[in-house]
Amino acid sequence: MTVVRDLSALFDPKSVAVVGASDDPAKYGHAVAAQALRAPDRRPVHLVNRRGGTVLGRPAATSLAAIGEPVELVVVSVPGPGFEAAVDDALACGARAIVGITAGFAETGESGRARQQAVAERVRAAGAVLVGPNCLGIADNTTELYLASDRFAPGGIALLSQSGNLALELQLRCAPHGLGFSRFVSLGNQADVTLVDLVADAARHEATRTIAVYAEDFGDGRAFAEAAADADKPVVLLTAGRGSASARSAQSHTGALTTSADVVAAACRDAGVELVATPREMAVVLAALNGTRPRAGRRAAVCTDGGGHGAIAADAAEAAGLAVPELSAAAQQRLRESLWEQSAVGNPVDLAGMGEQNPHSYGDTVTALLGLDEIDSVLLTGYFGGYSAATGGLGGPAAETSAAGGGNALAAGELATAQRIAAHRAKTAKPLVVQSMFPQSPSCRTLVEAGVPVFAATEDATRALAALTVAEGRQAPGVGPLPPPARPLRDFGYHGIRGLLGAAGVPFPEAREVTDEAGLPAAADAFPGPYVLKALHLLHKSDAGGVVLGLPDRDALLAAHREMHARLGARSYSVEAMADLRDGVELIVGVNRDPRFGPVAMVGLGGVLTEALHDVAFALAPVPAARAEALLTGLRTSALLTGVRGRPAVDVAAAAAVIERLTAFAAAHPEIAEIEVNPLLVRPDGALALDARAVPA
Amino acid sequence: MTVVRDLSALFDPKSVAVVGASDDPAKYGHAVAAQALRAPDRRPVHLVNRRGGTVLGRPAATSLAAIGEPVELVVVSVPGPGFEAAVDDALACGARAIVGITAGFAETGESGRARQQAVAERVRAAGAVLVGPNCLGIADNTTELYLASDRFAPGGIALLSQSGNLALELQLRCAPHGLGFSRFVSLGNQADVTLVDLVADAARHEATRTIAVYAEDFGDGRAFAEAAADADKPVVLLTAGRGSASARSAQSHTGALTTSADVVAAACRDAGVELVATPREMAVVLAALNGTRPRAGRRAAVCTDGGGHGAIAADAAEAAGLAVPELSAAAQQRLRESLWEQSAVGNPVDLAGMGEQNPHSYGDTVTALLGLDEIDSVLLTGYFGGYSAATGGLGGPAAETSAAGGGNALAAGELATAQRIAAHRAKTAKPLVVQSMFPQSPSCRTLVEAGVPVFAATEDATRALAALTVAEGRQAPGVGPLPPPARPLRDFGYHGIRGLLGAAGVPFPEAREVTDEAGLPAAADAFPGPYVLKALHLLHKSDAGGVVLGLPDRDALLAAHREMHARLGARSYSVEAMADLRDGVELIVGVNRDPRFGPVAMVGLGGVLTEALHDVAFALAPVPAARAEALLTGLRTSALLTGVRGRPAVDVAAAAAVIERLTAFAAAHPEIAEIEVNPLLVRPDGALALDARAVPA
Repeated sequence: MTVVRDLSALFDPKSVAVVGASDDPAKYGHAVAAQALRAPDRRPVHLVNRRGGTVLGRPAATSLAAIGEPVELVVVSVPGPGFEAAVDDALACGARAIVGITAGFAETGESGRARQQAVAERVRAAGAVLVGPNCLGIADNTTELYLASDRFAPGGIALLSQSGNLALELQLRCAPHGLGFSRFVSLGNQADVTLVDLVADAARHEATRTIAVYAEDFGDGRAFAEAAADADKPVVLLTAGRGSASARSAQSHTGALTTSADVVAAACRDAGVELVATPREMAVVLAALNGTRPRAGRRAAVCTDGGGHGAIAADAAEAAGLAVPELSAAAQQRLRESLWEQSAVGNPVDLAGMGEQNPHSYGDTVTALLGLDEIDSVLLTGYFGGYSAATGGLGGPAAETSAAGGGNALAAGELATAQRIAAHRAKTAKPLVVQSMFPQSPSCRTLVEAGVPVFAATEDATRALAALTVAEGRQAPGVGPLPPPARPLRDFGYHGIRGLLGAAGVPFPEAREVTDEAGLPAAADAFPGPYVLKALHLLHKSDAGGVVLGLPDRDALLAAHREMHARLGARSYSVEAMADLRDGVELIVGVNRDPRFGPVAMVGLGGVLTEALHDVAFALAPVPAARAEALLTGLRTSALLTGVRGRPAVDVAAAAAVIERLTAFAAAHPEIAEIEVNPLLVRPDGALALDARAVPA
Repeated sequence: MTVVRDLSALFDPKSVAVVGASDDPAKYGHAVAAQALRAPDRRPVHLVNRRGGTVLGRPAATSLAAIGEPVELVVVSVPGPGFEAAVDDALACGARAIVGITAGFAETGESGRARQQAVAERVRAAGAVLVGPNCLGIADNTTELYLASDRFAPGGIALLSQSGNLALELQLRCAPHGLGFSRFVSLGNQADVTLVDLVADAARHEATRTIAVYAEDFGDGRAFAEAAADADKPVVLLTAGRGSASARSAQSHTGALTTSADVVAAACRDAGVELVATPREMAVVLAALNGTRPRAGRRAAVCTDGGGHGAIAADAAEAAGLAVPELSAAAQQRLRESLWEQSAVGNPVDLAGMGEQNPHSYGDTVTALLGLDEIDSVLLTGYFGGYSAATGGLGGPAAETSAAGGGNALAAGELATAQRIAAHRAKTAKPLVVQSMFPQSPSCRTLVEAGVPVFAATEDATRALAALTVAEGRQAPGVGPLPPPARPLRDFGYHGIRGLLGAAGVPFPEAREVTDEAGLPAAADAFPGPYVLKALHLLHKSDAGGVVLGLPDRDALLAAHREMHARLGARSYSVEAMADLRDGVELIVGVNRDPRFGPVAMVGLGGVLTEALHDVAFALAPVPAARAEALLTGLRTSALLTGVRGRPAVDVAAAAAVIERLTAFAAAHPEIAEIEVNPLLVRPDGALALDARAVPA
């Protein structure tokens, strides 16, 4: 469970002071002070400038102490060397929240990091909270708190961003969708208040419907995932680091503590966070979700008037992971009732000119499609909006034709059908998304105001639809708590690990450890052959010729031991029952400890080709069996598990059970840096761990 | 070579008549007539309406004959049943070009198809050309010919489209990039003038710099690819059919003659056609290319002021297939000269606030990056444009801050640096692409006017950059002519095919065909063992147990033959020298005859996993060896060819040579529906065809 900090003094302070307020428009303290004064009656706003005089036409105090009364929130925007003194003054004045604009700390290197840590400790010791330093301020539209240089239109999005410019771009992109912001926090260096604290607080913030995050540094990534999973509202994350250049750049900023993009993506999937790659994609997903978590199925109907847009949109929808199934004969019959003979009703549905004769056919068709049990969502694409745009003066090239061609009646009809669709939307939980060449048309604005997301571009509309839907077999989001630490391992030896994993429910073949030749006969008598002989305490025993398979009997075992011991001189050996490899598939299953996200499971198919394809899947450990099964069946090469070209399917459930047990074990042992079962043999009738190793942290 | 038809009467007629011109704004003949009259002095424009009187304030002729003089181009926009008569009248009047607006032909079924074929034959017999029927008209801005309902802004793009609405959307999307159109042709049913004719003509059309196509039906796809490859200007193709829904929809329109999206994509790659999936992507690529074929290398530098945009853009660039390499120490030193200590110069390059202090640092950095030998292109991303936008009243949230913060000086500086970048662009062949939050800002407009493509969205900018670059090892586009047909095959038997392929240079192991046991000893004596025995004339000989490998000597061969013959009773057998399979990789290489694109080669790695991954590549046959090699090394599983985990690399060049020979053979034999070498064994020291089969058309 996420520990929730009290941030009320940050977002709804009784009084505010801006230290470093200035009349010099080149200084950031000028912009913040000007914003702070936008709500002069909500709470006292004090401007502090060490020269005194007036700032923005108001008398400025020469120091916080000179204000003569306690201040609950202090913005510090002073040159670098004065930061600590200003924070001390603020704490002395009773500040319970500090927003540190001043830069020059961890972002400049180790000594800056030490400075900001020391400040953060002083703030925490005083029972206060600190945002920043090196941040651009905060704003809360629900409490009329404006302490950033930019204005944010009010709305339901809490925007937590490590980049000011990206926040600005998101704002510009959200406006046409009628989306605004409940809060904005510039994360800065997160010396005290972290992304995790802010996500947890936004989750409890009633006016916040969606949490939008741009972050390069997740801090405690596991806690971020937990906070996001616990939030009963959508969390959308924009981050970089997929490519080598951005990873290189992040590494140079943050030192060595980088997490692979694969792990971030896995954590997001597990936590139900919508991961996006660009500001446009973020705005599209925000417009689509608009405060709701995705829940629809993937079967989309595409509707257009004029075949080209329908075919293009159907392709884009399938590329986005949706299905565009052929409609049943009954559904086609139903659509045909209000359409022409030349209309296509298979899906994509093409009015084929009917829309221009009778705009109401758009509404008839869209509402009919939303009413079909066999369809989970509807995408209207193409010209819709053009008739009202033409008369509304927004038409561009269409205006001429359409207005000339009985445009006014068409425009009125289109607007009426838009209103009908808008009214219908309130009655259905199924998503409707629109792509229009005329998104600013009166018809489209009517839809936007009713909460129907409208996009100019086909691929934005299909991305939006995908964000509203849930893949079949996708596991419900959730990040389980880490189990309490078990008694730490001391013995990282092969038989030690094997024994503990065996006790945790991971099945292994029979085995005996022997330290000299004299022990071999007893080992061979313990279970029938064929046998496997492994030399222990070698780093890569298989590559070093330290593993021999298929020794049929005791004599062969003795001979193999003699040869291997002469060659390798290992301290001890393992004699094991040889597993039946026929019809089996070999998996690799491991858990690594990520500096940000803690224990992270990795599963994949073994073998040369799979390695060449880098076909592995990740998940936060511990991994419940159902999620483990979804990981395995989601591999690109999963056809090998489910049976291909006459091969039998293997027991994926048994493999998933092993993954659950291994990952639970690893999660309870923070002293293990990495642990691996490789190979895990999966056959039609079960799973068996054929080898294991662990490395201490 | 593409046969080029004379379309001068279509695009620059001496006179025009619109049959079906009308005062009724609901009729298409009204819109076309109104457009036709926009250039009244260029050429005589006659309006024909069977009721006579006036149309659009001009006297209308009651028939073409009533005009009393020949007409070179006739637009026919009459109700369906009158189409043939109108065409006959037009031909009688001496028309050399006809634009058929009237619908109700092939798009409605077989009888409509027969009708349009008959009309097209009459037109061709008269030495004229016909566009349509079922089209929306044509326009040529270079000859002031306006015979479509929409106006198209003048420019360098010839737009050939099967969809009116998509053409309209493209127009709307191209306008902000300053792009216009030389021509527009609505393809309609292509009964006579085809997409191929129009591409070939646009390739010769001086004012056309880029050819943009939306097509669902390619007609003769091979000829389209040839015409596009022969055009010395970019061809951009938007098409549908990648997904199952659009393919289903296309199949219902066109009957059975559909081509897989894989083959279309391969033909585009071979022909150098830029294939796009949405109208937005098409506009982005058109803006990027702007008349030039892609030629830059893939090493991009990313430049921003404010790290977030740089990291996001670097990720997007890599996702688009570009490289964002770390800059050399010397290059970093060079950049550092005009930047701050806190600026990042590794790539992405982050001015880190320097742009706000001195906007000229944008120009300094961008020109320095364009000057680096180690960099092929530059992407400027983020806030640039914001300073001039703020003072230009375009700023949204930025206006307040920036204008307040010494905005005018910043705006002037930004505009000056934009002018400097624009001037520099003329001096370098390297692409510069800009993503700006303020694409309408004076600074960005300055860049657009200088031919620098500017986009609002990161992923559009990186897509544009990718369109300007050429992947390493990518083969120069070109579609070789089909070889003249060779003497047709009669014998499709195994040894017949084997012999012919062998003669064509495809290496096979030694082999002898034997029809009875008595022939076996001589066969075994012909070459040393081990042997392979195959039963012939079986459809799936391998699955039926008709192949035995590794027979060490003559006795084993005799025994295997006896057993197999008792079981299968085949008419004849093949005795072959067993190839050394060690360190070998098995390929599948085949050629199928596509109804649109003719002989199409398919290559892939053999084996269960590759089959499960559907990892195959296509190309128009014949495939030159260099292109064949690129196909193989482009497979997802190509690591198996180039050596993975200690395996030796195999002789890809030898495999490519076999592909060249096999595909040339197949291309010269139109009577072969499909031919396949499977497996083609590729070892470190060469390639060997182990089996072959062919199926007659």
